[in-house]
This record gives sequence, C-alpha cells and structure tokens, in this order.
Amino acid sequence: LPEEKLLEERMLRIIRTSFERFGFAPIETPAVERKEVLAAKGVVEKEIYALSRLAAEEGDDGSTDFALHFDLTVPAARYVAQHFGKLTFPFRRYQIQKVWRGERPQAGRFREFYQCDIDIVGNGSLDLLNDAEIPCVIHAVFREMDIGRFVIRMNNRKILTGLMENLGIERPADAMRAVDALEKVGAEKVLSSLEKDAGTTPAQAQALVEFLQKGHDLATLTTHDGGEMYRRGVAELEEVVRGLRAFGLPEDAFAVDPSIARGLDYYTGTVYETKLVDHPEVGSICSGGRYDDLASNYTKQTLPGVGISIGLTRLLSRLLDAKIVAPGSKTPARALVTVMTRDRLADYLAIAGELREAGIATELYTEPKKLGAQLKYADQKGFELAVIAGEDELGRGEVQLKNLKTGEQRNVAKADLVSAIEAG
Amino acid sequence: LPEEKLLEERMLRIIRTSFERFGFAPIETPAVERKEVLAAKGVVEKEIYALSRLAAEEGDDGSTDFALHFDLTVPAARYVAQHFGKLTFPFRRYQIQKVWRGERPQAGRFREFYQCDIDIVGNGSLDLLNDAEIPCVIHAVFREMDIGRFVIRMNNRKILTGLMENLGIERPADAMRAVDALEKVGAEKVLSSLEKDAGTTPAQAQALVEFLQKGHDLATLTTHDGGEMYRRGVAELEEVVRGLRAFGLPEDAFAVDPSIARGLDYYTGTVYETKLVDHPEVGSICSGGRYDDLASNYTKQTLPGVGISIGLTRLLSRLLDAKIVAPGSKTPARALVTVMTRDRLADYLAIAGELREAGIATELYTEPKKLGAQLKYADQKGFELAVIAGEDELGRGEVQLKNLKTGEQRNVAKADLVSAIEAG
Repeated sequence: LPEEKLLEERMLRIIRTSFERFGFAPIETPAVERKEVLAAKGVVEKEIYALSRLAAEEGDDGSTDFALHFDLTVPAARYVAQHFGKLTFPFRRYQIQKVWRGERPQAGRFREFYQCDIDIVGNGSLDLLNDAEIPCVIHAVFREMDIGRFVIRMNNRKILTGLMENLGIERPADAMRAVDALEKVGAEKVLSSLEKDAGTTPAQAQALVEFLQKGHDLATLTTHDGGEMYRRGVAELEEVVRGLRAFGLPEDAFAVDPSIARGLDYYTGTVYETKLVDHPEVGSICSGGRYDDLASNYTKQTLPGVGISIGLTRLLSRLLDAKIVAPGSKTPARALVTVMTRDRLADYLAIAGELREAGIATELYTEPKKLGAQLKYADQKGFELAVIAGEDELGRGEVQLKNLKTGEQRNVAKADLVSAIEAG
Repeated sequence: LPEEKLLEERMLRIIRTSFERFGFAPIETPAVERKEVLAAKGVVEKEIYALSRLAAEEGDDGSTDFALHFDLTVPAARYVAQHFGKLTFPFRRYQIQKVWRGERPQAGRFREFYQCDIDIVGNGSLDLLNDAEIPCVIHAVFREMDIGRFVIRMNNRKILTGLMENLGIERPADAMRAVDALEKVGAEKVLSSLEKDAGTTPAQAQALVEFLQKGHDLATLTTHDGGEMYRRGVAELEEVVRGLRAFGLPEDAFAVDPSIARGLDYYTGTVYETKLVDHPEVGSICSGGRYDDLASNYTKQTLPGVGISIGLTRLLSRLLDAKIVAPGSKTPARALVTVMTRDRLADYLAIAGELREAGIATELYTEPKKLGAQLKYADQKGFELAVIAGEDELGRGEVQLKNLKTGEQRNVAKADLVSAIEAG
C-alpha cells in the first residue's frame, strides 16, 4: 500500500544517500543471470528460480539458460571479475536491488526482497581500515533511520578458527555453524550440535562453549593464549577497533563479541552483526564481513574485500511488527489545492504550479465534486495542508490555507502562499 | 558501470521527485505474479518468463504457478482490484520497477528494463482534467532531465474510431495498428496493410490515409464532419487542450496529431506519444493514454483511468547513443581526503566526517600508498576535490584543498574547509 511504500522509499533514500556520502558508487546487475554463474557457489539450488518462456513453440521447450539472482554477492563477484580492467581499485560499490528465493513464504521470510549491500574490494590487498569504515557507514544509516539504540557486534573469524585449531577440532566450518546459533538456542543445544554435526569430543565442545560464554572484551581476549591464528585474529580486531575510535564511532555503538561466527563459509576475518538494543527479538538487522578472495570462481585475480548487507524488506517488516516505525500519510504531497469553481481553473492550476516550483509537493483535486467531498478526500489521504479559494477570495487575490492536522485556517495573500507554508 | 548507473540514478531521482511533486504516491508490486494474472490479457505468451525451482526434488518437478511481470499495467490493475476497499479514489499512483520480456536481446531491445508509470484511476468516472495533467507531469520530468526540445503529441482514439466507423471499416482494432505505423513506414505500406491486415477496401484505406496526412490541427478537425463518435473525440480533445493551457504548458511542448493511434487495444480516449524535436530517430520516449476500464479482468467495479509510461532503460540507451547525455564521474563523492601519515588518521577521519555532516559526499583513501598514487586514483575516479595535508599543515590547523578539474590548489584553515568548498 502507498503508505508502506512511502516508508520504504524513505528508508531507501536514507540508505542510498548514506552510502553515497561515504563515496560508494552504485552499480546494478541484471536480476537475470546465467544459471552457471549462480550455481557456482554451492548454494541450495531449490531456492533458485530458473526461467522458461511461458509458451513453448515447436522444437523449443521454452527453457532458457537463465535464473534469478538470490543475493547480490555472487552477481557482484561476477561483475568485478568481468569488468576488472575498467574498474578503479579499491572498488567501492553499493547495490540496492531485489533478490528472489524460492522458499515457501512464511512469517519473516519473503519470496522477493530488497537487499542493500556495500563492499570495498581491493586488488591483491585491502587495508584493515576498510573493516573499520563499514560499521561507520552502517551507523550513519541506522542513526538517520531513527530506529532506536543499536549495537554493531564484531568478531574476527581467525579467533574462532584459532581456538578450534588449538582444541584439535577437525571440522571448523561445521563447528562455526554450530557456534553461530549460541545466542539463539543456548549452550546445551550448541554442545550437542558440536558433537553431532561437527564431530567434536565432549571435552572439545565444552572448552569452546565455556570460552565463548565468558563474555570477553578485547582486553581479556589478548590475555588468553589461543595459538598463532588466534593471536592474528585478536591483533586484527584490535586494529579495527582502533580504526573505529579514530572514525569517532561512539563506544556504545559497537561491541566485541567472540561468539559471533556468521554461518557463511567465505568469511575469513572481521565479521559483523547488528542488533537493536531494546528489541533483541528482531534479530540481526545487518551483517557481513571480510573475505580473502571474492571472485575466485570467476577470475585468477585475488580480490579481497569487506562488506555488509541490510535485508531491507525483512528489517522493515520487523520494525513495523515491533511498532518501532509506523506508516504515515498515503500521499507524498503536502498540500491539496481544492477546486471550488471550474471557471477559475487556471487560477487553481497556477497556485499548484507555484507551490511545485517552490519544491512543495502538491496535488490538484481533479474531480467535479463539492468542497466537502474534496476535504474528506484530503483527510483520508493524509494531506497536511488544503488550499481553498472561492470566487470571492480569488477576486481579492487571496486564498484560505487550512492546516488539516490542527484544523487551523487563515486567509493568505496568493502572492505570500509559498512563504506562509514555508514558515509553517 | 558506476558512471552509467550514476546517470541512471540521477534520471530515476528526477522522475521520482517529479511524480511525487504532483501528488502521485509510489506503489510496488511483486515482480513475481501468478501466471493466470499475467496471461489474462492475451499477451504474447512466449515473451513471459515463467519460474521453476532450479533443482527438482522427488515428486516435485520444480514448476511453480509464478511468472515475471512484463509490464506494470497488468500488475497495477490486479493491485487496484485487490485493494479496492483500502484505496482512496481518484487513486494516483506511480510505479518504477523493472519488467522482463523473453525476447532475444537486440539493439534497443532489452530482456530486463525499467518502466516508470503514472496512472490516475477513478471509481466509476474520471474527469478529463486528468488527461490534461498527465502531459504536464511528463513535461516537468523531461524539462528537468535537460534532454533538449520535445513535443508531446496527442490524439483521441474516438476520432480515429469515428472516422473508421464512418468509412465503414469493419475491423477498427486491426486498422488502428496499421495506422499507428504511418510515420514510421509511410503511406504506401499503410495502405497495403489496411487492405491486407485490416480487410478494408482500397477506397476506405485511401480516404483514411488521405485524411490523416492532411496535417490537421484542432481548428480543422472541428470543421470535418466525421459522425457522432468522431465529434465526441474532437470535443474531448478540445477540452484536454483547454486544460493543458490552463496548466500553463508551453504551446510548443504539445501538438494535436490525429494520426497517433498507439498499438494497444485498451485505449479508448486520449492517447499520447512524445518525441525529441532534434532527434526524431530516437522514436517515442514516453507514451500512454486513457482507458475506460482498467481492471475488468479482475473486478466488476468500473475503473476508468489515464496514464503514461517512460521506458527508462531504452530511453537512456538511446540518449547515450545520440550523445544527448554522457556519463560523468565514477563516484558519487565530490571530495577525496588523502592520507599522508597514518599517525594522523584521526585528523583525516575527522575532516571526512565534517564534510559528510555538511552533506558533502566524501571518500577517505584507505590504502597505505604514496600521495601520487592517491591523486592518480582521484583522477581516475573523477573526484572534483582532493584534501591534502601532511604533518606540517595539520600542525598548523590547515589543509590543502585541490580542485582536480582546474588544478588550482590553496591552503585553507581546517575550520573553514566546509565553507571554502561550499563557496566553490
């Protein structure tokens, strides 16, 4: 509905503007990619929608080589590999597009939804300062969205990988997925999942979960002896946190949390997750991380990167459910110019035209109805202002300006209408 | 590429802002609709992409009930019918979305493209004033896009239908399609197509084409005796043109042209087509019209409407080909803050932060490279400004502000940087 879409448009505008303010350039990739590009990453294929022409013809079953993208990371990897020679590195791109997943729609899951991604991709190498910049962009977005307090929680995958290595855990990727659920399902279930799904011994599982439950900050992380890989992870995380402070990110806007794992295999360093402080039930509203090599499926160039993604459709739906945001007006226009006498149409149109020229979105009522019906329409749609003028007022060069929120009504010289509205 | 997408974003912003300035509210319908909704209109089914899950499972061939929409009119009709009770009429909506057509891509044809539609839909009736407003919205869009002179050409379908009735032509819909090609293929081909594809006699075809080639304006149209339907068409067209003048649309921005037919069957009154005066080879850049009943497939309510559509992807591609517009910078940011000494990172970040707070999109260079490499990067990406500061300048509370377009460089107090940039 328009009131919901207007809210979504406002959010999209904030996201776009914030991304651009940090120098991220927009790209757009086709929603329709070759199947071989999409299937390359070992994703769940039944979640991918393939395309065929609706009507088959003789000698043509209608099938095509194409499918709909299910995220923006795979198309971005294909894009960077394909346009490598034309891009300037570090390549900073944002991408705001719909993606599709062939799952049965259910609460909080959508067949079709907006993703809003930023990534910084280096050619050969990429400084850790980029890992510090990403949360600052996200902070700017959510602060402007005005959705209450939020914390960007961070970890470095090498810390977990190092711990697991040190404990002799043999299937770290599986263990990572088990650990990722810690906050959601609790220690007991993670312990059993580590043994069952990741093949650890009870002692390994116990040691890992105990460490993660201790609630470490950077200082206590540095005192633990977790081996070489662990030490590198802690050092990277320290550098990123120094960067965050240099960026001026408020201390209460981020937190180090060694239990953040992220399910996806391709993260190799920093990982992020973002939660609403007063609405933990909403879950992570934005997540991402650092990967060593974005496009290894498509090119021999080594392209390390760091990025983050906002699942806007899901976020907005949860914000609405939790009543953190609410849809407002059904119209993007502030003012409705009513029409009392058709003979004076040119006057009404001139008034509407002047307001628009001044940047005040304005609708002119177009149907031959009585003033009462026009004002009812204005109320239903949620206009802030109505401009009303009969033969008499127009003859005197005046109009009535009615504030539909307060009911206040006053006569204003036609020539002063714009400034009267701008003055409030 | 980013420079092309930035141009497209600028156009999308102009379109969105103009639509909203006239009080059109955004809606968005899913790209994925039920096949039965899309197939209801008798379109070319092989142009519709149907969806199936990429990997089939046992007992499930992966097929679905869904397909991708091929225009925004059919989904809008479904939407208005479905949400009838929740909408306020006249319902003014805009819709900017991608659509898909399963044709083989070729010059000027795309598999996937943006359409930007506005429609005003009435409940039961809709005043002709709306037919006059639509071209004014389009005029505002193209004027701001700054794409040179353009003319919105208009006709009323009843004029052509009346003429055909009067001449005894029995298949007016087919004749309409033949006439629609007049400007493109010339009189001779239209004459033969009228006889061959629309079953007219040579005399009927001759009379129709002769009339259309005479180049009528409103005055000469009123003098012709074309029967009842024709007279109603001329009267409607006169009323719409009076409306255009009341709206203040410049006389050279529109033209009456009785040969405008539009291929689509569902138009029943006003029809529009828009051409670039200095680039007729680009073809129509925006077209639409009035229909008596938008959603007869989906509801018993009578919902007359008038609308127009900009095929942005095609338009932009043609504007680029004709060099009417050109891609500019590869970055949305104006300024690059370079980093000469990492020890002063907090200073550089504070500068970037201040510029961003002031609404100046700013990128901070993140890699540990020499100043020369950073300035080369700035040139390649097309930044307008570079901020340069070493230990010495920062110690004095100064920075160098370099204009990368002119090469001009000057020292500015850190505290005055924003105002120096804003002053130009």
